Amino acid sequence: MSDETVKYTLSEREIPTHWVNLMPDLPGEPIPPLNPQTMEPAGPPDLTPIFPEALIMQEVSPEPEVEIPEEVREVYKLWRPSPLYRARRLEKALDTPAHIYYKYEGVSPAGSHKPNSAVAQAYENKQAGIKRLATETGAGQWGSALALACRLFDLECVIYMVGSSYDQKPYRRSMMQTWGATVLRSPSETTDAGRSQLSHPTGSLGIAISEAVEVAAKDPETNYSLGSVLNHVCLHQTVIGQEAMAQMALAGEEPDVVVGCVGGGSNFAGLTFPFIRRVLRDGATTRFLAAEPAACPTLTRGVYRYDFGDTVGMTPLLPMYTLGHDFVPPPVHAGGLRYHGDAPILCALVKEGLIEARAYAQNPAFEAALMFARDEGIVPGPEPAHAIRATIEEALAAREAGEERVILLGLSGHGHFDMSAYDDYLAGRLEDIEFSEADMQAALDRLPEAPAIA
Amino acid sequence: MSDETVKYTLSEREIPTHWVNLMPDLPGEPIPPLNPQTMEPAGPPDLTPIFPEALIMQEVSPEPEVEIPEEVREVYKLWRPSPLYRARRLEKALDTPAHIYYKYEGVSPAGSHKPNSAVAQAYENKQAGIKRLATETGAGQWGSALALACRLFDLECVIYMVGSSYDQKPYRRSMMQTWGATVLRSPSETTDAGRSQLSHPTGSLGIAISEAVEVAAKDPETNYSLGSVLNHVCLHQTVIGQEAMAQMALAGEEPDVVVGCVGGGSNFAGLTFPFIRRVLRDGATTRFLAAEPAACPTLTRGVYRYDFGDTVGMTPLLPMYTLGHDFVPPPVHAGGLRYHGDAPILCALVKEGLIEARAYAQNPAFEAALMFARDEGIVPGPEPAHAIRATIEEALAAREAGEERVILLGLSGHGHFDMSAYDDYLAGRLEDIEFSEADMQAALDRLPEAPAIA
Repeated sequence: MSDETVKYTLSEREIPTHWVNLMPDLPGEPIPPLNPQTMEPAGPPDLTPIFPEALIMQEVSPEPEVEIPEEVREVYKLWRPSPLYRARRLEKALDTPAHIYYKYEGVSPAGSHKPNSAVAQAYENKQAGIKRLATETGAGQWGSALALACRLFDLECVIYMVGSSYDQKPYRRSMMQTWGATVLRSPSETTDAGRSQLSHPTGSLGIAISEAVEVAAKDPETNYSLGSVLNHVCLHQTVIGQEAMAQMALAGEEPDVVVGCVGGGSNFAGLTFPFIRRVLRDGATTRFLAAEPAACPTLTRGVYRYDFGDTVGMTPLLPMYTLGHDFVPPPVHAGGLRYHGDAPILCALVKEGLIEARAYAQNPAFEAALMFARDEGIVPGPEPAHAIRATIEEALAAREAGEERVILLGLSGHGHFDMSAYDDYLAGRLEDIEFSEADMQAALDRLPEAPAIA
Repeated sequence: MSDETVKYTLSEREIPTHWVNLMPDLPGEPIPPLNPQTMEPAGPPDLTPIFPEALIMQEVSPEPEVEIPEEVREVYKLWRPSPLYRARRLEKALDTPAHIYYKYEGVSPAGSHKPNSAVAQAYENKQAGIKRLATETGAGQWGSALALACRLFDLECVIYMVGSSYDQKPYRRSMMQTWGATVLRSPSETTDAGRSQLSHPTGSLGIAISEAVEVAAKDPETNYSLGSVLNHVCLHQTVIGQEAMAQMALAGEEPDVVVGCVGGGSNFAGLTFPFIRRVLRDGATTRFLAAEPAACPTLTRGVYRYDFGDTVGMTPLLPMYTLGHDFVPPPVHAGGLRYHGDAPILCALVKEGLIEARAYAQNPAFEAALMFARDEGIVPGPEPAHAIRATIEEALAAREAGEERVILLGLSGHGHFDMSAYDDYLAGRLEDIEFSEADMQAALDRLPEAPAIA
């Protein structure tokens, strides 16, 4: 038993100094977002009403590396570098020759990878003289992260929380309030967008985005902050993959497959982009596997089209796999994965065949999460539970093939605020909620007019 | 801003190899526990029905150091060494010349220091051929820790959870069940002790202990496991203080005062005993400050007498500050601090004047916790909130005196399962529940007949 726990730690000096921008390495011509009025490529001027200059420059940067401001790295030290573990107990339980490693982002004060971007965004907005950030949150992970980041950089923070989560997850709300944020139940009466959607009382991420964007667009001292999907958010998360690469080198191994869950895509991007760049540049043969919920199967069932990022249609049109911007996913516990689209860069890589995707229902995901908790100790969030399921499948495939494959899993957050989901699973009450093909088709029929993606 | 976050990390190789046993260094003659039937010192034979030999030997060890089994150190690697931080943002907010450091134990999978002992206890019971451990839990921290440890060493685990916590903290219960433990609401109908206490439907830690001890005493394949108070539990926790000492050396400072919260005393003992030994051996002048709840003020208001560790009177008589073994503390949120007594070694040190104690009501404690969360990011548990209050008082005293004092705070766990308490605080609903002098006096009138402590 003397090597059952293997943890690879880095010193604070090894926190990355730059973020990895995959844009210049992407194959083919970049596919720009479009201004929905003109159908012309949306540029920085389309974004200035709600984002600070520095983040817009990151959004469109052609540089392969973007320096991390020293003040951001200082805050990262609160929880970074995050640990990488070898999951020896899980390997033993699966009787697999595979080597399973996991990179754990639940050590941040907010409990997930989200503060990696929240801190960077709060910093740049503070530098730009902004007084307040508005955002949306589903499960509450992103809202918590931004509440924390705003507090550390002395910004006000207003958070539109999806109604069903607001009702079911009061403790995530308490956490945001503990850090000083104002939390409003969405759809709310405080915005035109919210008032137009009061017939959807449980809300959705798309509606909450519309509300927060509206607030930011109307008030020059307020900006908007998004927790996923956009290039600059994916960029900020690449600290995860860079650290994991250094830690895998300490372990003396290279991953054959990198696995993560995908909601809007920032967690997956953060872990994989540094590895994907190596594939694109050096021809490495690493596989990349995205796990998504069967109730909201964007990458496996969506169409690759231009669509709005929000429900009401206030954002530029983004080139992505989408289930339709007004598709309201069923209320699965993995609230962080309930988004109709995905990060455009990620979608382009799926389209190119560089990333595989699989969808899982709730019960198989929680079965995997429970196994992980019992073998590795950490209780995973419902979102990474999907990635754990995919990891176990890969480990069993390695056993089947009799091959010592190396699997790297992104464990994006803990499940401390999701124990009611475990309760439901243990009591056999968890539903494998059906994805509605009909609802999706109806939503796809309402896609905005836009050019096909080249 | 370039040095706002300062974290001192150790490598896994620096996880302590031995636990620190303070017993041989204590001033004066040891004060033994007594067999309540004979009033003779209770020895190993009194403990064998419910504890394995190896833990009994630790309980009475005369050696200043006890080697940590390799298998236990392996599991410690899941979260140890835990980080030590300099709280620069809090210092700035308090405008104090004091240097505040905090040792954070919330990084364990169970969220507190408790697994340090749970893992050691599960290991020794497994080695002894035991099949099942029975224990009690108040707030759920200890129960979670033992559920995790039992799972890792393949033991069954049955947990009597104090009724009021069982009702108010369903998510701690879910966590224990996620790790495979059986959780029963105490008082239960499954034991004589429980049936005798059904008139106290909300239960108490003392009642739950009686139930678990009874189960262990009646079944040779089941042992009992206690999360605090006893010598061997304090012993296991000394990994905290040893690491903190190494980390303070990295920081190039010595603490002038070490601050922690006290329920049964194991957290406080774990942090302070290595430092206290230095005081006893080398005449260092470090101060030690124990923070307890005003609703259960054992050290500041209790009497120093022999008393039972449990409510029903099944344990040996322990020499300690007590509010009476059947005193039922008011239901404050800091469930981990609601115990009528304290670790005998700790009480002896308080009696000797080596440890100071202060009691705080809930609102001042949560005011301090909120300030900490907003400045340092981590949301503290209600128990360490009391220690944070004491730390802030010390930092303000240093400002008053114009002295650059060094304060070391034990941050024993996070508050992720206690957000309803923050909700109550933020909404102004938190009660500063009155300690009832009359109830305590009534309980003291029921103290067992026993010799006075020499």
